[in-house]
Amino acid sequence: MTKLNTQIKLALRPEGLPNKETWKIEKNPITKITNGEILIENRYISLDPAMRGWINSSRSYIEPVKIGEVMRAGTVGKIIESKNNKFPVGSYVSGWGGVQEFSHSNGENYYIVDPNLSPLPRYLGTLGMPGMTAYFGIIREGEIKNKEVVLVSGAAGAVGSVVGQIAKIKGCKVIGIAGGKEKKEYIINELGFDGAIDYKNENIIQGIKRECPNGIDVYFDNVGGEILDSALVFLKKNARVVICGAISQYNKKPSGPNNYLSLLVNRAKMKGMVVFDYSKDYKIAMMEMAKWISNGKLKSKEDIYIGIENFHETFLRLFNGEKLGKLVLQIKK
Amino acid sequence: MTKLNTQIKLALRPEGLPNKETWKIEKNPITKITNGEILIENRYISLDPAMRGWINSSRSYIEPVKIGEVMRAGTVGKIIESKNNKFPVGSYVSGWGGVQEFSHSNGENYYIVDPNLSPLPRYLGTLGMPGMTAYFGIIREGEIKNKEVVLVSGAAGAVGSVVGQIAKIKGCKVIGIAGGKEKKEYIINELGFDGAIDYKNENIIQGIKRECPNGIDVYFDNVGGEILDSALVFLKKNARVVICGAISQYNKKPSGPNNYLSLLVNRAKMKGMVVFDYSKDYKIAMMEMAKWISNGKLKSKEDIYIGIENFHETFLRLFNGEKLGKLVLQIKK
Repeated sequence: MTKLNTQIKLALRPEGLPNKETWKIEKNPITKITNGEILIENRYISLDPAMRGWINSSRSYIEPVKIGEVMRAGTVGKIIESKNNKFPVGSYVSGWGGVQEFSHSNGENYYIVDPNLSPLPRYLGTLGMPGMTAYFGIIREGEIKNKEVVLVSGAAGAVGSVVGQIAKIKGCKVIGIAGGKEKKEYIINELGFDGAIDYKNENIIQGIKRECPNGIDVYFDNVGGEILDSALVFLKKNARVVICGAISQYNKKPSGPNNYLSLLVNRAKMKGMVVFDYSKDYKIAMMEMAKWISNGKLKSKEDIYIGIENFHETFLRLFNGEKLGKLVLQIKK
Repeated sequence: MTKLNTQIKLALRPEGLPNKETWKIEKNPITKITNGEILIENRYISLDPAMRGWINSSRSYIEPVKIGEVMRAGTVGKIIESKNNKFPVGSYVSGWGGVQEFSHSNGENYYIVDPNLSPLPRYLGTLGMPGMTAYFGIIREGEIKNKEVVLVSGAAGAVGSVVGQIAKIKGCKVIGIAGGKEKKEYIINELGFDGAIDYKNENIIQGIKRECPNGIDVYFDNVGGEILDSALVFLKKNARVVICGAISQYNKKPSGPNNYLSLLVNRAKMKGMVVFDYSKDYKIAMMEMAKWISNGKLKSKEDIYIGIENFHETFLRLFNGEKLGKLVLQIKK
């Protein structure tokens, strides 16, 4: 019996939160590779908030996933066949394998990773796109300086947790916003944040006032909505707001930050970012991040669920907050 | 009989649009000046949208005007008494004289202007704060480059009309948004804009699509609200949005730009500005602007109303759009 490739394809563009009808599961023959190509057995699939945007039909920074296409996703896997001598059989690679058991590629946008240097799922988190997003977002866009006050939302998440830790490394006072007691304790006790605001159990405005009594120099936003609006109230002069994501807005008609005129009063800047723009410098960032990880300054946590058949339910954890750290789906042990 | 000083004072902080109860008119004795001071007979008073913000109680870039204080305003007047040898009697000065017939000052924040070089009201417009705002806003914050597409709202106003003309001088394609046929024709036929959108008589989204089919590099916003939101839809990659004002929002609870995630998708920047930050470079700007005016590249229009007793009604023209160019109140011929 020939082994088949289980694939999750986009069936219907969702309105609001994706539901079971958004996806269809198919089992198809594994593609035969041709000259220059590799066949990868995927091990881990990255689940990221940005994926919600990719299944809208509207104009964005990347082509929407088409109906009937395998869902786009970052992956780590093992090369099991190769007709490309840059990618030997048995090595591990990270790239855009999609939500499926087996991917083939000509190697473009894939790179080899070392499972002895770091656990494989970490190449999807702190040493992958979320880590790169955090690094370039807080350093290049946030332009953080020693002793500045940094507020970050989604602070227990894949991006926010790294943003806060990098800001600490750079000498900032760092306050995180996260939902629930467990996350609040995690970012303070394990990640070393200076303070935390639990948006599920306290008033956000009061929380920011308590933790940032003299205002905010940099607000790094992963969530949008009421939290963004509250942060704007506390901007200091020449503050910077980095718009990295807006998880609270992805499944509804977005609403804007009513307090945006704080930008005017405070000569502040709100800037959007897309991590792909920094790709030429990923290596620099990865080396620095790996060093911080190895000397214990940067902690990394992956929240791993198992089974491609559980993709839909696991994906929803991004939006209901039921995860801690980088959300990863394990395909094969 | 001693001559009295007619003054407009803030009586009540308005909710929404100011009404007659917002102000009280008083006639008080003219202050006797002491050593180092000057007495100025005001000729023209500047009416600016920013004044609406100064009579709110809330935190801003400048202290709120206190209840019972003379309303803050930029002025041009003639020195009629002087105990300060930097400011001789008979010379004309621009400064913060407030809404009153006579002001006294130690000269701080006043500077001498020449009525032979330029008509006096122009020192409140193109050669005053609005002109400085336009100059630094579009050049320094907008970072305009040759051949870029610039969209400006409030395009027939004191700031917008200068923004658009400077962008034309710098080689940009310039589209203005203004209300009504007269303003539309004014900015195209008299100021040389490349196109115009009449927000009172056409759909803004359709208008921008028609005039900026390939998107916008710089949007200079004086108005906020629906127009800002529409402009965001058309941002090009690395676009800049300059938040200079928000006339549509000053008399109500502000609402934010729902399409702000266009900043993310397009790696665009939204930046607030306050003209006072550029004060050390005002002279450079004024010299360049005066040159452009004298060689006909920059046109300037003042819309002048007469009589301090008409302050309230004239001030409201800022918000109902019934003015063309810089709104000025003439106190004395």
